[in-house]
Amino acid sequence: MTTAEARGALTIAGSDPSGGAGIQADLKTFAAHGCYGASVITSLTAQNTTGVQGVHAVPPDFVVQQLRMVFDDIDIKAIKTGMLYDAVIAAEVAKVLKERQAAGKLAPVVCDPVCVSTSGHTLLKPDALDVLVSQVFPLTTLITPNKPETELLLKTPNSEVKIESLADMYTAAVELSKKTSTAVLVKGGHVVSSLKNLEEITQKHSNVEVVKQNLYDENMEILLVGRDPKELNPEIVVDLLYQPDTQSAVVYARPRIESTSTHGTGCTLSAAIASGLAQGLSLKDAVAQGALYTHFGIATAQPIGKGYGPLNHLHCVNRTVISSPTPTNPYPFAHYLIRNTKEVWKGYVEHEFVKQLGKGVLAKEKFVHFIKQDYHYLKYYARAYGLLASKSSTFPEIHAAATIIMSVIHEIDTHKSFCETFGVTAEELENTPESTATTAYGAFIINSGVQGDACALMMAVLSCLLGYGEVGLWLKKESELPNSWVVMEGNPYKKWIEDYSGEGYQSAVRVGLATIEKMLVADHPSPARLKEWLGIFQRCTALERGFWDMAMGLHK
Amino acid sequence: MTTAEARGALTIAGSDPSGGAGIQADLKTFAAHGCYGASVITSLTAQNTTGVQGVHAVPPDFVVQQLRMVFDDIDIKAIKTGMLYDAVIAAEVAKVLKERQAAGKLAPVVCDPVCVSTSGHTLLKPDALDVLVSQVFPLTTLITPNKPETELLLKTPNSEVKIESLADMYTAAVELSKKTSTAVLVKGGHVVSSLKNLEEITQKHSNVEVVKQNLYDENMEILLVGRDPKELNPEIVVDLLYQPDTQSAVVYARPRIESTSTHGTGCTLSAAIASGLAQGLSLKDAVAQGALYTHFGIATAQPIGKGYGPLNHLHCVNRTVISSPTPTNPYPFAHYLIRNTKEVWKGYVEHEFVKQLGKGVLAKEKFVHFIKQDYHYLKYYARAYGLLASKSSTFPEIHAAATIIMSVIHEIDTHKSFCETFGVTAEELENTPESTATTAYGAFIINSGVQGDACALMMAVLSCLLGYGEVGLWLKKESELPNSWVVMEGNPYKKWIEDYSGEGYQSAVRVGLATIEKMLVADHPSPARLKEWLGIFQRCTALERGFWDMAMGLHK
Repeated sequence: MTTAEARGALTIAGSDPSGGAGIQADLKTFAAHGCYGASVITSLTAQNTTGVQGVHAVPPDFVVQQLRMVFDDIDIKAIKTGMLYDAVIAAEVAKVLKERQAAGKLAPVVCDPVCVSTSGHTLLKPDALDVLVSQVFPLTTLITPNKPETELLLKTPNSEVKIESLADMYTAAVELSKKTSTAVLVKGGHVVSSLKNLEEITQKHSNVEVVKQNLYDENMEILLVGRDPKELNPEIVVDLLYQPDTQSAVVYARPRIESTSTHGTGCTLSAAIASGLAQGLSLKDAVAQGALYTHFGIATAQPIGKGYGPLNHLHCVNRTVISSPTPTNPYPFAHYLIRNTKEVWKGYVEHEFVKQLGKGVLAKEKFVHFIKQDYHYLKYYARAYGLLASKSSTFPEIHAAATIIMSVIHEIDTHKSFCETFGVTAEELENTPESTATTAYGAFIINSGVQGDACALMMAVLSCLLGYGEVGLWLKKESELPNSWVVMEGNPYKKWIEDYSGEGYQSAVRVGLATIEKMLVADHPSPARLKEWLGIFQRCTALERGFWDMAMGLHK
Repeated sequence: MTTAEARGALTIAGSDPSGGAGIQADLKTFAAHGCYGASVITSLTAQNTTGVQGVHAVPPDFVVQQLRMVFDDIDIKAIKTGMLYDAVIAAEVAKVLKERQAAGKLAPVVCDPVCVSTSGHTLLKPDALDVLVSQVFPLTTLITPNKPETELLLKTPNSEVKIESLADMYTAAVELSKKTSTAVLVKGGHVVSSLKNLEEITQKHSNVEVVKQNLYDENMEILLVGRDPKELNPEIVVDLLYQPDTQSAVVYARPRIESTSTHGTGCTLSAAIASGLAQGLSLKDAVAQGALYTHFGIATAQPIGKGYGPLNHLHCVNRTVISSPTPTNPYPFAHYLIRNTKEVWKGYVEHEFVKQLGKGVLAKEKFVHFIKQDYHYLKYYARAYGLLASKSSTFPEIHAAATIIMSVIHEIDTHKSFCETFGVTAEELENTPESTATTAYGAFIINSGVQGDACALMMAVLSCLLGYGEVGLWLKKESELPNSWVVMEGNPYKKWIEDYSGEGYQSAVRVGLATIEKMLVADHPSPARLKEWLGIFQRCTALERGFWDMAMGLHK
């Protein structure tokens, strides 16, 4: 989520030490959306899932000081306000936001007019309500009152408003939007609705659109067969967004969930909408994303605490195993593969065969045995790239695979003339029976490609590509040390060492490294898939080691 | 990350509104580790990446009130303390923790003795240091001082300690651990070390183990070729853990990174270690995980703010597209596939062919055309499950694939006798030329399996399995409505409708649904892979629709 860090989101709200509401819920929500979270605290509460026991209001000038420190330094793309507690704090917050507006620097503001907590505690002093309406609302992009808050905001000395249905919610949203000149999201968590109500409202008002979320639509009968009727609650929950600029409404409808994990629902929703705005979504899409995020937060929550527990804010995030490339480690995937194949990898690279080859004392017949089998192996290897081409989706991928086949074909010619210098004719090469070690390795590569996808097959050919490069570099590096055990001058295998340590082969290694790192970034594997990939790499590394063993005569 | 929510982690620290340090950094770190974060605030700062402008200390009794609300309700598995600000607050925190300890309920405590901010601001009043040492340290599992803090803690009226090297760090850690009777992690961010120092310290002390993190090890030469020497800084950073119970030390070594993104490094490390302890890791492993998390947080950070910017706390998290199963939606993956194939899926399920079949008015020759081609299609379908068996990794998977082949073979017999009732002989069935629509669909399924892995092939066979189940249920449901357009009595296709809506076929559908949901949970795809899977499902749904078109004579 590296790039995401640039999406700054600010919450101006109270603190809930138990972690389910307030700035704690907001910061978790920002993080789950890949936003960079900042938080200005207006008041501290001593609360948990059973209720609010005390509130410590932050001195208003210290709220202002926090706000200025954030705005002076952090690029904030969206703001949400939560508990503003009292009239003075609310007015001070409004003052700073107004300054930003005057300077043309105010990011979209989502105002959750937090008046009463889920547990029933008053979180906004009565004198603050007027300040909210007269000073904060004019600065906002959206306000997100629930049913009681909407009723409170529409109450006049002469009349009371009661919201009992979706139709009431529509009327109230239109009226409140008129009164406040801002977009209004009336939250319907306290209102029971049905699919029929959705039909009715769209029939009555042509400016109402319905967005169904996680509901069963037509042609989904197979998903309902054999289900417990209790699970198929026909009751739905709706939130209604009214936007004054388009004079249109969107109803977001989703299944009602019976749950006690609702502590901080309002905080979470407004923070999720702000996250969407920070990501550059339209208001309509930001609300859709936020409503669904909150829904799944409730639906997947585990019980925490004795009262109304918190939402699961992390339902949509997975941990990755391998980090992104960094300047000190541009190949984290290759680093991971080699690190986790440690002993076997070392046994392959620093094999006795390689050591004797470096010393120039390797018996000629062992080397000949090796190059004869290598000839057969290269046939598997070339075929593997043919299989890879057949499993590719783009011309560049097909081209890359074919290019490697062409270079193997070219290598075969060199191989033949190289063999001739060791007295092995082309005919003898062709007629040598394939050893078990060659079959095991070659067939395992092909099997990886038949069983898995292109990525799995890439893992299977990688060990050979990287390993010979490593062997070449190791011998070369050792040969450059004073009094080295590696002998280059007069070594009958000098050309072999030079080939694999040379720029030609090493540039092919670098292409391979770049390819797998790109693969990891484009399609980051789950832990299960990564385990499968590592398993293939480890297996092939062991089979490479077995190939040297075979050449040394340990196996035929 | 549903289960992870149970791992409660608490930070007791100051607030940084700009989001990079303090409880904000801690909550982000807890979230990145899949822990449930709670936070008790000891003091508010007005700060940003350029420095600390002001501090508002929270009344000590309100700190206590917050602590009690958290401990009374939330299951806390690990605690970290950060900025405790002054002697009174530190003493009150110690008092509550001591009560927990006396009750046998104190979770492991990691104490970051935050004395000075990265920007040089004093965050601990001098009188608090004694309280920290005498009252807080005895309650801790680990303390995590940096170089200046270690020097400060070891200073006596008669002597000063200077830490300049890894050797000094070892001596200081041993001494500080003796003095405090707790494990000590001396952080070496201010100390320049080298690989040679690592060798020296293990040679000198047999009780020192080295853990290399993200460093190049032997046999990794290929990862270093062609690299800019400037990127290959031989300087390393080390943290040294000394544990008094084993009287042994671990040195965690990683590349030094030149970066200004270091605001909140200490907060992040101690919170990450606490996360590891909450996850049940040993202290040694928790420190290893925390140090690496912090390292990548710095290494992958984007510049934020004008001064020392925050770490990237989200470097190890990815967003998932599809939620976990919930009681209201136990098949989120199938729901996702159908929802995102909407128009095509509807065109397939509610095809004119299906409608005429439901009415019982479908021309016999069209149905015969359909069942003849279906016979050829079933050959592809059975072969696809053979291919799936060959791509499976376990006997249950191979068994499941073979079971479906057996049921297709059985279906073929029924198919033949069914065809006979329509006057089509087995010979005629076999000799019917395959239509283009059949080849397109059948060959696409096989191609999906050849090109991709078992998951991709599952996606390809799914549309047929689910779609016929949906068609059967749709017709049956419609037939049960009053005055239905679907006619069952006397309908020549009654058996066909009953077969696909019946329990036999529907239970196969449910097995298929359960299989793909399990697949999603076990191996959650990246967005790129999910897109590929959805593409295969959509394509097959379109090819199913094309199959009905063919039967209706729209295509041959």
